Amino acid sequence: MDDASPTLTSRAVPAKILPVPTTVSAQLRRSISNLASAPRLALEQMPTTADAWRAFVAGADAQALAIAPILATLFPHTVMKTQIAGVTVREITPAGWTADRDGKLLINLHGGGYVLNGGEASTSEAVLGAHYSGLKVISVDYRMAPDHPFPAAVDDALAVWKAVTADRDPASIGVFGTSAGGGLTLALVLKLKSLGLPLPGALALGTPWVDLTGASDSYAVNAEVDGIFSSFDTIGRAMAALYAGEAGVADPLVSPIFGDFTGFPPAILTTGTRDILLSDTVRTYRAMRAAGVEARLEVHEAMSHAEYIYAFDSPESAVAFGDVAAFFHGHLKG
Amino acid sequence: MDDASPTLTSRAVPAKILPVPTTVSAQLRRSISNLASAPRLALEQMPTTADAWRAFVAGADAQALAIAPILATLFPHTVMKTQIAGVTVREITPAGWTADRDGKLLINLHGGGYVLNGGEASTSEAVLGAHYSGLKVISVDYRMAPDHPFPAAVDDALAVWKAVTADRDPASIGVFGTSAGGGLTLALVLKLKSLGLPLPGALALGTPWVDLTGASDSYAVNAEVDGIFSSFDTIGRAMAALYAGEAGVADPLVSPIFGDFTGFPPAILTTGTRDILLSDTVRTYRAMRAAGVEARLEVHEAMSHAEYIYAFDSPESAVAFGDVAAFFHGHLKG
Repeated sequence: MDDASPTLTSRAVPAKILPVPTTVSAQLRRSISNLASAPRLALEQMPTTADAWRAFVAGADAQALAIAPILATLFPHTVMKTQIAGVTVREITPAGWTADRDGKLLINLHGGGYVLNGGEASTSEAVLGAHYSGLKVISVDYRMAPDHPFPAAVDDALAVWKAVTADRDPASIGVFGTSAGGGLTLALVLKLKSLGLPLPGALALGTPWVDLTGASDSYAVNAEVDGIFSSFDTIGRAMAALYAGEAGVADPLVSPIFGDFTGFPPAILTTGTRDILLSDTVRTYRAMRAAGVEARLEVHEAMSHAEYIYAFDSPESAVAFGDVAAFFHGHLKG
Repeated sequence: MDDASPTLTSRAVPAKILPVPTTVSAQLRRSISNLASAPRLALEQMPTTADAWRAFVAGADAQALAIAPILATLFPHTVMKTQIAGVTVREITPAGWTADRDGKLLINLHGGGYVLNGGEASTSEAVLGAHYSGLKVISVDYRMAPDHPFPAAVDDALAVWKAVTADRDPASIGVFGTSAGGGLTLALVLKLKSLGLPLPGALALGTPWVDLTGASDSYAVNAEVDGIFSSFDTIGRAMAALYAGEAGVADPLVSPIFGDFTGFPPAILTTGTRDILLSDTVRTYRAMRAAGVEARLEVHEAMSHAEYIYAFDSPESAVAFGDVAAFFHGHLKG
């Protein structure tokens, strides 16, 4: 990036109205319409103290938790809350699971900007992943900001990984996560590489948050286009600073796009055309390919950031999780 | 699409300024900046008579031709203009080509909205494809609107295909094209299927124009974001109507997204995050996957429609064409 000359010309884009597209399912149309009706966060509404953050988190997590009973009906499963290496986890077992499926195991690192979706709100993606793969999923309730900034999340993911691989072939384990969970998945693998520890058999990175410095082009292009993560400049930058703390947002374990993906396991990456992290996903995919990693890119029409989790009744969500499940079954040992 | 209810809520997106991103090469940054400085077509500037179209085409083609000498220097090749089955073609032979490479052959269908880039202006993508694959490319100068609307282009592509496959294994031939050329590639294969004729060994679809009805979500989202194809509502809709003529824009041979891709050859699809045809590409990819076709999706950070052709000096262009070349070498017989 030797040529960020001030003579380069920015591009002006006029205000526009985005209709709900006719090119997606009725369920996704309803989700897109609902998101368009939802209030948007203004910069002034972002918390500025730890106490204000805690209140903000409590409100958001309560909202996230509201879908749990619906998920439980549509995607029957059991949840066993326990601790692994001192870290709280929830083991999600899909209905119909039998011991002959125990050869493969998934670990989920939830999203939420390293701030949101802790505790009981942490299992939505894990439940969907368990349902579509038929596999058990260990959902890691890693410590988060403001109380536990970086590197607490990486430390917790690493501790769980070490404990789980003590009596299980690492190549039989897939790790997946969306948004911050996708970034944390990459950070975990960078950390494992640096420690010389064995790596997972495969990864699934859902619209991974890999650039907390804010350089991705889609942060500008899809600002206010994305219905779920509408603006990096409001909640994104605030959560990035809160999480990174003293390490700073450019640390490769905070922003894994600055890490080296050489030797990484096969990965499937998922995003949507309205996703504010479209560029994060695409840049990660390209960096993996450039490093010789087997990678597959999945993009969905008109989807916002992580919408495959929230529009869980849509056929597009079933395709997204179906692709992830097939990728794990095709690449994990066991 | 049973639920396009008027109660669905559109999404308002404010005006924005897109900086030239720091996340791409210096060469692509220069291209993005140049495109931001270029004048944009207004609806009032679109031609409305056949004569006005001819003048518009002549001006645009002269511009397109201006890069030919630069391409000839950077990507040395020979051009042999000839006719196949009455259709004008140019056979592009990359420097260093030897007869042991003759087992595989590529056919290129150029872009330009079924209106532009005819004649000497038709070979840019073919030259790049020949260079990166090391293979001969037959560049088809198919007839275009306004003088020859649909189905002339499909008829010409079909005539060339039949003649070339008379003495060559179809499975050893790859067909590729960008924009209208990608749409025409799909239309050709739909036509071959309907005639029960053998299909190509593999396809490369560069940001294919598959929905001339204008329904793709990116026509709204990336309007004025894309620096090359800035607006469907100006030049897109006008060229679509001019090309489709009496068949109408919803005919599957005009808008192949309405066709059935079952049984299609393996395909690689390429687009960029700023591409106004991002949705066309993604929808085609998803429809192929749903039909059980082996398909691979390649997306490039901050690229506009077909920019890999025009930013031919960028490493991103080399990666895009390198992926296409590798895909053909991996999938074509011979």
